[in-house]
Amino acid sequence: MTATTQGPVATTTRLQRLSLNTATTKYWTLQQAIDGALRAGIPALGVWRDRVAEVGTQRAAQMIRDAGLRVSSLCRGGFLTAADPVEQRAAVADNRAAISEAATLGTDSLIMVIGGLPDGDRDIAGARQRVADRIADLVPYAREHGVRLVLEPLHPMYCADRAVLSTLGQALDLAAPHPADTVGVVVDTFHVWWDPALAEQIARAGREDRLAAYQVCDWNLPIAADALLSRGMMGDGHIDFDAIGGWVRDAGYTGDIEVEIFNADIWATDGDQVLATMAQRYVDLVLPTAEHNIHQKGG
Amino acid sequence: MTATTQGPVATTTRLQRLSLNTATTKYWTLQQAIDGALRAGIPALGVWRDRVAEVGTQRAAQMIRDAGLRVSSLCRGGFLTAADPVEQRAAVADNRAAISEAATLGTDSLIMVIGGLPDGDRDIAGARQRVADRIADLVPYAREHGVRLVLEPLHPMYCADRAVLSTLGQALDLAAPHPADTVGVVVDTFHVWWDPALAEQIARAGREDRLAAYQVCDWNLPIAADALLSRGMMGDGHIDFDAIGGWVRDAGYTGDIEVEIFNADIWATDGDQVLATMAQRYVDLVLPTAEHNIHQKGG
Repeated sequence: MTATTQGPVATTTRLQRLSLNTATTKYWTLQQAIDGALRAGIPALGVWRDRVAEVGTQRAAQMIRDAGLRVSSLCRGGFLTAADPVEQRAAVADNRAAISEAATLGTDSLIMVIGGLPDGDRDIAGARQRVADRIADLVPYAREHGVRLVLEPLHPMYCADRAVLSTLGQALDLAAPHPADTVGVVVDTFHVWWDPALAEQIARAGREDRLAAYQVCDWNLPIAADALLSRGMMGDGHIDFDAIGGWVRDAGYTGDIEVEIFNADIWATDGDQVLATMAQRYVDLVLPTAEHNIHQKGG
Repeated sequence: MTATTQGPVATTTRLQRLSLNTATTKYWTLQQAIDGALRAGIPALGVWRDRVAEVGTQRAAQMIRDAGLRVSSLCRGGFLTAADPVEQRAAVADNRAAISEAATLGTDSLIMVIGGLPDGDRDIAGARQRVADRIADLVPYAREHGVRLVLEPLHPMYCADRAVLSTLGQALDLAAPHPADTVGVVVDTFHVWWDPALAEQIARAGREDRLAAYQVCDWNLPIAADALLSRGMMGDGHIDFDAIGGWVRDAGYTGDIEVEIFNADIWATDGDQVLATMAQRYVDLVLPTAEHNIHQKGG
């Protein structure tokens, strides 16, 4: 069975590019996420490693394949800023494991959250250089496995603790020394919507064949007490999905569009209801510019 | 009496560029801030309009002058993103009033927090264009009064609600159509420390004669429940003041260095103790690169 024969939206192909990132339904097991996606007519999953680990990679791959779903990405590799050589080797080993998992799962996209400043370390330039060095360490292994390291610029409010990579332009600079099919970038609306250089850098990502993934959610205010949980459902916040979606479309991106929301209220809501809202908001707010692209291509 | 004859650090000139922004001692009246600065040997104040309003601009100017203190800046003008013509006219009128106040207070720096998205408005490009238009409206009046509009890029986490101006590069682009002595920029470490283009854009600000002010405080984690109150005392967070101070020095900036901290714990601490800590951290963490500059100039 395939996703397009399931659920209330099965009679349309409107959801054909929509992917459920498993973080959006945090409390669902992988099996529950698969079943929920099928019920909602969502044909792809962005999977987090913890949900893969709970059943094992081979079994996870089999479950998703048997359900007729795609894996749009594996979340996540990264955390490459360690200054200590032992920690650096551990980070490289862990990222190699993630690359292998991605290959087994049948996705070529490993999302990379590259890490913040080590404890007590204020040398941001040094941390960024170590990231560049670790990416270089990982590229041959990724290339062998047909997996792309997808660099994720995170919102600058996470610069100290999650990612010293803050803009799409910076991600493209970091990717530049490596083959485009081995190191790409992701546009996550929450992280980059504010960037005055966003239109220009999305266009550049297209020209340089680096645009590997598109993740959507909204920027809600106030910022949540746990800042990581500030991501909102599309339409609930301040992001102009028409504008950003148009730039992503014009950059030639035709891949999956993942909805990845960390939000305590959404996590407390019934999963099927979350997926129904998510599919509707996707169709209303995100798809229009993507659809326009398909029509343009056909025309 | 002058600041350099007062307080425990009176025997040195180490604090000659230090300025107390009145927001750091939020609960002090203007008179209390003046007296506190004198006791601490701090020779300048960055004053907020509410503290000026409580005594009237002429009287505030007289009080500060009589105390032998300088005014390093007036905080703040801005909030220029309104789409409604009536609100736009009100914003221009209010900013003209702020320009007059700055002139009366004897400072040529009016710090501009340029405003977030209007309620329900997601068109960030439109909001940015309106800011450019309002700046153009204000430039002749500022020029007549010898006051510089000092554009402040705010941290991207305030993009929706406080300032659609997020990077120093963007601020310099916004300033570019206008005379350098009428539109400048401020480097506030809290807002820009994460920016991968910071070194390059500070150097550009120097080349273009736009670097009008330098404000320091630290980036603390976790982000405060009220995100505006996340600013920390220098040394308590993640910012490398040596690096940024060196770039500011190399850009030729020799003006006042304001400490502006919004932080509930600091506001709850005895003001004299806050100023003593602030002066010590300034000497230990901020001044070394500035001092180096003075030596270089002498040598």
